[in-house]
Amino acid sequence: MLRALSNETSVLNALPLRILGTGRHVPATEVTSQQLDQRWQLPAGTTFARSGVATRHYVGEGETASSMGAAAATQALASAGIDPGQIDCLISACSVMEQPIPCQAVLIQRALGLGDSGIPAFDVNATCLSFLVALDLAANALALGRYRCVLIVSSEVASGGLDASTPATAGLFGDGAAAVVVGRSAADDGSALLSSRLSSYGDGAELCRIRGGGTRYPRGEEQSPDALRSFSMDGRGAYRFAARHLPAFWERLLGEAGTTTAALRCLVPHQASGGGLDHVVQALGLRPDQVIRILRATGNQVAASLPHALHHARIEQRVQRGDLVALLGTGAGLAIGGMVLRY
Amino acid sequence: MLRALSNETSVLNALPLRILGTGRHVPATEVTSQQLDQRWQLPAGTTFARSGVATRHYVGEGETASSMGAAAATQALASAGIDPGQIDCLISACSVMEQPIPCQAVLIQRALGLGDSGIPAFDVNATCLSFLVALDLAANALALGRYRCVLIVSSEVASGGLDASTPATAGLFGDGAAAVVVGRSAADDGSALLSSRLSSYGDGAELCRIRGGGTRYPRGEEQSPDALRSFSMDGRGAYRFAARHLPAFWERLLGEAGTTTAALRCLVPHQASGGGLDHVVQALGLRPDQVIRILRATGNQVAASLPHALHHARIEQRVQRGDLVALLGTGAGLAIGGMVLRY
Repeated sequence: MLRALSNETSVLNALPLRILGTGRHVPATEVTSQQLDQRWQLPAGTTFARSGVATRHYVGEGETASSMGAAAATQALASAGIDPGQIDCLISACSVMEQPIPCQAVLIQRALGLGDSGIPAFDVNATCLSFLVALDLAANALALGRYRCVLIVSSEVASGGLDASTPATAGLFGDGAAAVVVGRSAADDGSALLSSRLSSYGDGAELCRIRGGGTRYPRGEEQSPDALRSFSMDGRGAYRFAARHLPAFWERLLGEAGTTTAALRCLVPHQASGGGLDHVVQALGLRPDQVIRILRATGNQVAASLPHALHHARIEQRVQRGDLVALLGTGAGLAIGGMVLRY
Repeated sequence: MLRALSNETSVLNALPLRILGTGRHVPATEVTSQQLDQRWQLPAGTTFARSGVATRHYVGEGETASSMGAAAATQALASAGIDPGQIDCLISACSVMEQPIPCQAVLIQRALGLGDSGIPAFDVNATCLSFLVALDLAANALALGRYRCVLIVSSEVASGGLDASTPATAGLFGDGAAAVVVGRSAADDGSALLSSRLSSYGDGAELCRIRGGGTRYPRGEEQSPDALRSFSMDGRGAYRFAARHLPAFWERLLGEAGTTTAALRCLVPHQASGGGLDHVVQALGLRPDQVIRILRATGNQVAASLPHALHHARIEQRVQRGDLVALLGTGAGLAIGGMVLRY
């Protein structure tokens, strides 16, 4: 469960959660790391060596978080064999919104042609871990019989917030969307959410941030709007944070699911960076072949990375029904989130 | 439940939800409607006559959504007799964030001195109805035994997004925060969530909006950043929308709870505007004394209005244990949300 109650070793009895379908969308414009090296006047090979990202996509004219989200959702619904109108709830699980009002979910709902449907639509945001939180909340509602089918969409336009003066950070990110359709598992199909945790540490709030664009700097006071609107990261600080908390978090997550690292068919991690992924593999004692890596071809897609990597695992048949799968990420907040699923 | 499944008349069996405490905070600077009339060169009495708001508060130097949210949360926790460290989860239920990254909930967590606690913290956003969605999601988690105590905080700095060129809209809003602590009701205390619905209509997304500040206009293209950052509303269109959907929504909400308008001790509505509140009273056949109105002294505090009005009902003893209480609002999206609680 999200946080173990103090007097109990494990509170979450497995919840009847089943991934019914997945989809993803990347925008049309591909930008390679060679191109970024040229743009930023860096020696050839610098951006790839730093980030582990060979190529990524950026939005162009007319492409928005909601248009990408709707494209990914359409693919996910088709793969689940479900009509858009059959969903009971649409959750947007993005970090930075397309616009402050209304929420992102209704913009995606409208882009799906469901704008007069009345289907409940709201946003969940825990930055890079938004998808995990949305999936956890959907699992609760499905377990209680309040919904039968929930569509979760993560769509990110990271390219608008990149700061060319910090190319080591800016080279990491890419735009894109991913969507997952979930339902309640049947009594005999074995799919389940076995454990789920989120640990948030607001003391690390300054380590990864975009300060401008909200109510704190409504008119871009104090600094130029552009500087405030850019993402900044203290990579070393974020790394130290993860290194300090991750092993205990992982042990507890697996313990609550009653499983071990070796028993996992695969780990679907947030695609933070090449170095970050290497650290996870090493620190948690995973075999490299257990870890789903899409970073090289996508960049860090913020909240869309986790569902995109899950989609990749599914279409590449890296996960089969009955397999144990873990999802795991660290993100702005700072926060660590994870889940163990029987797929 | 949030949306009735098609083959069942009512899916939500009462969930064991109990309001344990409430709190609120308004910033120091009071701004009367007379002052706004002068500032905007309007005949004396215009702003009050249009809005039904006599006075409201705006943030000043050093006051942020997270500082106000933490103040309201501290009061709510004290009224519940709960130590901050005892909460199992912190949900921020705001519309416009303080800053895009990290999420609002970790900023409030840090402001509460819980920044190293690991307590899960995330945001839920359905604009003015964010509190209803957060309360619904908390009720699920409590019903499943995954949490024992959840803190929900709604904090809004509306003043940063007001457009002096549209004083009829700008005069409606005020800043402030409210917080509610909820737990699982005991078997014999009778507190429960009896019904809960959210209906979202993205086709109405243009009727209430702030376009700038997100990824759609990352650098304020096309128009001045100030114009994009301001809230704009088609009041007539939003009214027509509410008038069209509200009566059927209300009937269904009450039907799922197995109650009637006359049986409600009170209605806690979103404080949209004076005219909006009058319309709700009339269209739904409520007695005026059933309706909690704080608008005159607070303005529309966006997502903070609903929990602030609930706090007001509690401290003014307009609601007692065992009473039936409805919460209801329409908001940007467009969306309608409601709940029936046994307090």
